[in-house]
Formats: sequence, structure tokens, C-alpha cells
Amino acid sequence: MVFMSDTRTNAGVDNISTFRKMRIWEQPGQRSITLMSAGNLATTQAVVSLLEERAKEVAERDPGILNCESMFQVATMVGETLREVIQNNSQNGQRAESTFHATLLVGGQVGDGQMRLFLIYPEGNFIEASDDTPFFQIGETKYGRPIILRAYDPAMSFEDAIKLLLVSFDSTIKANLSVSPPLDVHVYEKDSRKTGKVFRIDTENAYFREISEGWGVALREAFASLPNFDFEKSLTRPEASFRHKDSES
Amino acid sequence: MVFMSDTRTNAGVDNISTFRKMRIWEQPGQRSITLMSAGNLATTQAVVSLLEERAKEVAERDPGILNCESMFQVATMVGETLREVIQNNSQNGQRAESTFHATLLVGGQVGDGQMRLFLIYPEGNFIEASDDTPFFQIGETKYGRPIILRAYDPAMSFEDAIKLLLVSFDSTIKANLSVSPPLDVHVYEKDSRKTGKVFRIDTENAYFREISEGWGVALREAFASLPNFDFEKSLTRPEASFRHKDSES
Repeated sequence: MVFMSDTRTNAGVDNISTFRKMRIWEQPGQRSITLMSAGNLATTQAVVSLLEERAKEVAERDPGILNCESMFQVATMVGETLREVIQNNSQNGQRAESTFHATLLVGGQVGDGQMRLFLIYPEGNFIEASDDTPFFQIGETKYGRPIILRAYDPAMSFEDAIKLLLVSFDSTIKANLSVSPPLDVHVYEKDSRKTGKVFRIDTENAYFREISEGWGVALREAFASLPNFDFEKSLTRPEASFRHKDSES
Repeated sequence: MVFMSDTRTNAGVDNISTFRKMRIWEQPGQRSITLMSAGNLATTQAVVSLLEERAKEVAERDPGILNCESMFQVATMVGETLREVIQNNSQNGQRAESTFHATLLVGGQVGDGQMRLFLIYPEGNFIEASDDTPFFQIGETKYGRPIILRAYDPAMSFEDAIKLLLVSFDSTIKANLSVSPPLDVHVYEKDSRKTGKVFRIDTENAYFREISEGWGVALREAFASLPNFDFEKSLTRPEASFRHKDSES
């Protein structure tokens, strides 16, 4: 399982900051749980803080992320925490309910259970990735989606998955100010039940620059390799209703 | 100038229809004006109907699209009509103001004036394309934007521009149910002051199918041509604050 998140947050284009959007909880040999967030930063930070406080207090572990017996329980608890935070903010006389919204991805493995990945909605309910839909995106998803749809292959290596995610992020970063490096990555190996490779890729990263520049060139070459359009073959008779022709001129 | 629009409209996924989103007004030798719309269908149809009624009535031509003396006047008048329609709907006791919104593109050439392209906002104001930003998108713009940003070249031929727009639309169509062929195209030749090549591309169009299938293959090849990721080169030491490690386990 490969997780990747950017670090750009903004409250308007004149107020941008860098915040990590990925958090990992682990008990080596027992569990590794990764949480990524998109949406209101105050909301997602409150959710993470609540989860971390509860994970630290042994006495209060009952609802803690390190005490859940399955990924399903983890997703349920994270979803409830998210809904609580959003409701608390919204009930305090605030009108702008939608601005408190956030969406989360939580994935990993607990004990003897399967590796699982959930997308959690602001309402606290969630859906799970499956063979049919083996990946999730949250936040500014649209720019980077076509290349994932086109190039994703369930059999691809971790290295290729990282390459694909970098290409996808790069397309988004080029088109939208609300997404920006550095990018955080966690590669979790199935059944390892411990945190895998964790690293950060920033704009100075030689490989990311190679991908970003190389992808522009490769795309233009791919485009050039497609057959050219020919007017003769595609022209059809314009329909009368399509245009308004001034009868007097 | 190349215009391309899809024809999918929806009021929920269980209520989809096909409507033309492109209208052309012309007086051969004097003017050709193309209007494309995105957003609420009732709003954009009302705008087009108002513009067409006014264009037909000679006595009422004063505010008519065929009587404007410049593209700037056309954009101003279309913007005012759009704002009127939205305001009328919103003032009739309707709350869901945003659902009446629509955005328009209007481009063409009038008399001795330059060829110009405007993007008109629901508020009725508008911006104009320029050398720095020579193209506009409206509606479901994000999926198809990266390839335009990467492959657009001001010097490209009409044929290449159509090819690029087809690739861009294809990425959107593959990712989003709210955009669908057939696609309407109008290629306006600068200083011709008459409607140029007008045609429709549907899913059965051999060239569109070639592009759609070829683009998937070309993208995967482009992706494979990029250098592979190497963990050794990119791994950095995980930061302590990044993960919560259970000290007791």
C-alpha cells in the first residue's frame, strides 16, 4: 500500500502554509495505521490531536487507535471523531458549516486482519477500497485522476506506484495553487504490521524534477504520436437549427 | 479560433440528456459569433432564446446580437442577459441561487474589429483571452486541463488544436459522467467574418475512437519511458514527530 500526500494548506491565496497531512501510528509487529487528510486544517488537526491523546493514555485506551482490534474499528472510531469535531464547530453558532468539512483516508493493518484502506466522509461514514476500485484520492483530485485511470495496474511495483503518484501530483501542482510539495510518502508492506519506508520528496529532489520535466516532454511526444486530424474525413453537414443566419444580409 | 463543447446535461445521474451547448450567429462577411455554455440548462437556454428573439426582431434590434458594433458590445450584452436571467430566477422566491448559475464563452469577430474571446461569469462581468492565456475552459474543466497546459502551442495548426481538444475531452469523459459526446466543433478562421467548419463528433467517429484508444496506449508508453524510482536515492531519515510509536510494545 502506497500513501502520498502534499503539504500545502491555504486560507486564501495570500495565506498559504506547509503542514504535514499524513500521520502514522504503529506498534511494530502488531499494527501500522496511516491517516491522510484533506479539507479544513483546524478540523483535521483536531481529529489527529484527539486520536493521539487517546492513543497515549493507557487508562483511556478503550476508544484509542492503538486498542482497536481491527481496521474496521479504526475507521469507525476515526469517522466518529471526525463527525464530532465538525459538529462541535458547527453547533457553536457558526454558520459556515461546509468550511469545517474534511475528508480522511485511513489504511493499514491490525493484528491478524487484512490490509484495508478506507475513505472517511465528513459525516463519519466510510467506504472501503476493493479490487474494482483499489485506490482513493481526496482533496483536489480531478487534475491528477486521468493519468491514474489510464496507467494504474494492480500488478505494478512499489517503485512504479510511486512514479505514477508523482506524475499525478505533478499534473495537479502545475494546474492548482492549493497543492504543493514537499510530498510525504509511506510505503506499507502487506503483512509486515510495522511502518515501512517513510520519506519526503521536495522540489529539490532530483528524481521529482526529472519526472516533472520528463513528463512534459513525454506527453508532447505521446500527443505527437497520435494520428492527425483530417477535416475531410470528419466534416458533416451543419444542421440548420445549429446556426442563426441573418436572412437580410 | 477553435470551439468545442460536449452535449451532456444532467439533473442527477438518473436524469441525463443530450443538448447542444454551442450556438452560432452570423452575417457572412460581417460577423460570426459563437456562444458556448456551462451550468444550469434552463438558464443557458433562456439566455440563448432571449438573444435569438432579439436578433430576429428588426425593430428591437437595438439590443440585438446582430446589431452590436464590436465583440466587446456583444460580450457586454450577453453578460447582461445572463445576469438578468439568473436574477429573475433567484428573485422569484427561489433560495437555491447557485443552482441557477451558468458560465458562458463567447468569441468571434464583428466588422473591422479583432477576433476576440470572452469568458462571462454568472454576475455578468467577463474576462478576455490574451497572448498569456489564449484559451478558456468552462464547466468540468479540471480533468482535461493538464494536457492542455502541457501540449498547447500558440503556433499549432487547427488540426492539432482539434486533436488536443479531443484528448482533453476524452480524459474528462473517462473520469466524469457529467461530460459526454457527441462533441460540437466550430473552427473559425481569423478575418473570415463568416462561420467556418462546423461539425459534430460522436462516439462512433473513427478518429475519436482512434484518439481515445491511442491516447491510453501512448500515455502508458510515456509513463514507461520515464526513469524508474529508486528507493536508495530518495530515502531520508523519518522524522520523529512524524509517527507515534507505542513505547510500551
